[in-house]
Amino acid sequence: MQSSHLREHNLSTVLRAVAGAGEPVSRAALAKRTGLTKPTVSKLVQELLDAGLLVEGQQPAVRASGRPMIPLGIARGSVLGVGLEIAADHLACLVTDLGGRVLHEDARFGAYAGASVDDVAAALSELLDDALSPRPDVPVAGICVSVPGRLGPDRATVLSAPNLAWRDVPLVERLGRLPSFRGFALTAGNDSMLAARTEVLRRPGESFLFLHGETGIGGAVVLEGRIHGGEHGWAGELGHVTISPGGELCRCGRRGCLEAYASYHALRGRTGLPEDVRIEDLVAATAERLRSREAVMEMIGRPLGVVLANSMNVLDLSTVVLSGYFAPIAAELEPVLREVVEAHALTAEVGPIEIQRSAADAHPALSGAAATALEPILTAPARWLDRR
Amino acid sequence: MQSSHLREHNLSTVLRAVAGAGEPVSRAALAKRTGLTKPTVSKLVQELLDAGLLVEGQQPAVRASGRPMIPLGIARGSVLGVGLEIAADHLACLVTDLGGRVLHEDARFGAYAGASVDDVAAALSELLDDALSPRPDVPVAGICVSVPGRLGPDRATVLSAPNLAWRDVPLVERLGRLPSFRGFALTAGNDSMLAARTEVLRRPGESFLFLHGETGIGGAVVLEGRIHGGEHGWAGELGHVTISPGGELCRCGRRGCLEAYASYHALRGRTGLPEDVRIEDLVAATAERLRSREAVMEMIGRPLGVVLANSMNVLDLSTVVLSGYFAPIAAELEPVLREVVEAHALTAEVGPIEIQRSAADAHPALSGAAATALEPILTAPARWLDRR
Repeated sequence: MQSSHLREHNLSTVLRAVAGAGEPVSRAALAKRTGLTKPTVSKLVQELLDAGLLVEGQQPAVRASGRPMIPLGIARGSVLGVGLEIAADHLACLVTDLGGRVLHEDARFGAYAGASVDDVAAALSELLDDALSPRPDVPVAGICVSVPGRLGPDRATVLSAPNLAWRDVPLVERLGRLPSFRGFALTAGNDSMLAARTEVLRRPGESFLFLHGETGIGGAVVLEGRIHGGEHGWAGELGHVTISPGGELCRCGRRGCLEAYASYHALRGRTGLPEDVRIEDLVAATAERLRSREAVMEMIGRPLGVVLANSMNVLDLSTVVLSGYFAPIAAELEPVLREVVEAHALTAEVGPIEIQRSAADAHPALSGAAATALEPILTAPARWLDRR
Repeated sequence: MQSSHLREHNLSTVLRAVAGAGEPVSRAALAKRTGLTKPTVSKLVQELLDAGLLVEGQQPAVRASGRPMIPLGIARGSVLGVGLEIAADHLACLVTDLGGRVLHEDARFGAYAGASVDDVAAALSELLDDALSPRPDVPVAGICVSVPGRLGPDRATVLSAPNLAWRDVPLVERLGRLPSFRGFALTAGNDSMLAARTEVLRRPGESFLFLHGETGIGGAVVLEGRIHGGEHGWAGELGHVTISPGGELCRCGRRGCLEAYASYHALRGRTGLPEDVRIEDLVAATAERLRSREAVMEMIGRPLGVVLANSMNVLDLSTVVLSGYFAPIAAELEPVLREVVEAHALTAEVGPIEIQRSAADAHPALSGAAATALEPILTAPARWLDRR
C-alpha cells in the first residue's frame, strides 16, 4: 500500500472506531480494536484532534495502574450530514453530526403522491434552508435524498417511483440547479436500502433479510454487517419477487409481485379502504373491514412468508427483520410467517428461524440518508482534512 | 499480522497465483500480480521450489531487455487431490495434482439410488485403492466426496439425500472406518456446490446464479468469484424454492418446490417415463411422449424462469449459468427462460439478461471435489511444508 493510501486507510479505521464505539475510548483501546500500534494511533488521533473531528474528554483520575486514560470522542457538531426524505405523504429533513447526534429534524406532511418534481424540489430546498441557515459556518459533508423508488446505477436518477408517479427523473441534477443545493455533495438512495443501513448500524456484523413495508415493499440483503447491493444496487427488492406468475397487477407494471398483495396500496385496494387512510392506521382499518385482526395477519403474512422462505433458500439466512409498517405488527405476524417459512425454508430443518422487529427508530430511511451523507468523511478523512 | 501468519498468507498468495495462471509465469510477473515485492516473491518461490510444489521451466533465451525470465509452474504430480462422487446412477473417482492435471479417472455405473451406505462405502474404497495403489509415494492432500444431498454444517454428515434414500448418514465417519481411507483428510460436499466450484474456476471473478440439473436440482450463488455459502453452506438451494405453495409434493417432503416440477424425477413422473430412463435421454424421451420438443422446454423453462427471476430480484444478478442436464439444452431453454425472466426480473429493465451454458466439463461435481481436496495446501502451504 502506498503511504498516502495507508494514511487514508488508517485515519478512516480510527475515525470509524471512535464513531462506532458509542462511548468515549482511549488511545490504548483504539489500538486494541484497530490492530494498529499505539504510536500510530496517537499520531492519527492527533491529526483528527487538530482537524476538530475528535475531542478529548475530561481526563479521569490517574488509574491504579500507570498512566491516565484520556477519553476520545467525536466532536459535537463539527461536521454535518443532511438527510432528506421524499415519501408519498411527507417530506423530511434530518441533520446529524459525525457522532450521529440529531441537530435538527423537520417534516412537512402533505399529498406528494402526484406532486411534480419541481414542487417537491422547491419544498426540499426550503427544508434545507431552514436546517442550515442557523449553522452557516459548520461544514457539511454531504446531502443524501431518500426516494421511495428505484434509482439508476448512477444513484442520481429515479428510474421509477410508482408511489410518486415519477419515471426517469434526474433528481440529483434537478436539485443541483437550486441555489440551496449548490456546492454540496449530493446523492440519492432508495428508501429501503437507507432504512437497512440504519438497521445495520444497530446490528453490527449480523446477517439478515430486511423487509421494509411502506406504501410499497422494499428490502435488503445484509451479509455480515454489509448490505449486498448487487449489480445495480437493487438487491433485496423483495417487493417485486413473484408469488403468483400472471397474478395481481403490481404498480411496477409486472404481475404477481409480493407488493401487489401485501403493501399498503394492495391492502387498501383489496379491502376497499379510502385513499386517504394513513399507513399508521392501515392494519386497524383493514381489521375493521375484515372484522378480524387475524385475517389481516393471514392476508399479509402468507405472501410475505413465501417470499421470505424463498429468499432464505437462496441465501441460507435464518433471520428476518421487519421494518416500516410491518414493525409494529411483527409479533402478530410471527405465527403465520413462522408457519409458512418453516414449511418452505430449508434452514428450519436445523435451527430456529428468527423473526425480529426492526431495532431502528421511526424514520430509518431518513436516518440512513443522514448517515450516508457523512460517509465520504468516514471513508476518506484524509481527503477531507487536506481540502480544508 | 504476525510473521508466521504473514508467511502463510504470502505463500498461499504465490501458490494460488501460479496455480491460477494457466501458463508458466516469471517471478517478476508474480510480483506484479500479487502486489508483493520481487525479493519477497523470490524467497517464497524458493521455499515452494525446495518443497517440490513448484518447478522451474526451461530458461528462455536472454530477452532484449535485461535478465532472463525463468518460467515457474506447478510441479507435475507432486501432491494429489482425490475427488469421489456418489450419484444415483454411478460412483466415480478423479485424481488430479495441484496444477489440475488429471492423473486418474474411473467410474462404476449402477443403480445406487437404493444402495446401503455400506455398499457404497465399499465400492468407493475399491475405487480409491485402484487410484492410489499405483502412486504409493505421492502425498495426498485430501479426499473430498461429492454427495447428491444436503450436508450438515459439519460437512461430514448427510442430512438428507432423497435421491439415494439416505437420511442422517455420518458419511465421513463411516468412510473413515475403512482401511483405505485411514490417515487421509476427508471431507464431503454437496454436488451442486462442488460443480459450482468448478464453474468458478472457469469464470474467475464473475457473479452469477448457478443452476445444476441432476436427478434433483441444486444451485449456487456466486458473487465476484466466490460461492456464497450462507449459514449452513446451503445457499443457492434453488431446487427447493417454492413456485407453488401447497403444490406438487417434492422428494424433500415439502410442497411446491421447483424440483417437484423440473427435475429428472419430476419430468419422468409427470410424463410417465420408465424408471430406468437415463438422464442423458430424458429430454428426448419426454419430447417423444409430449410429441413436441417445445413443450418440454415450456415444462422445464416456466418454473425455472420464475425461480431465476425471483433469485435475481433478491440478489440483483443478471447472469445465469445452466449446468447438469440443463447445459446441453441451454440454447433451447433460452427463449422461454428469457420470456419469464424478463417479465419478472427488475434487472431486465436496464440491461440484457445473460443465460449461459456451463463452461465446465462433463463431471463438474467430481472435478470440484478433487479441487476441494487440494484446498488445504493452497490455503495453508506453510502448514503443509512444515509437517513434511
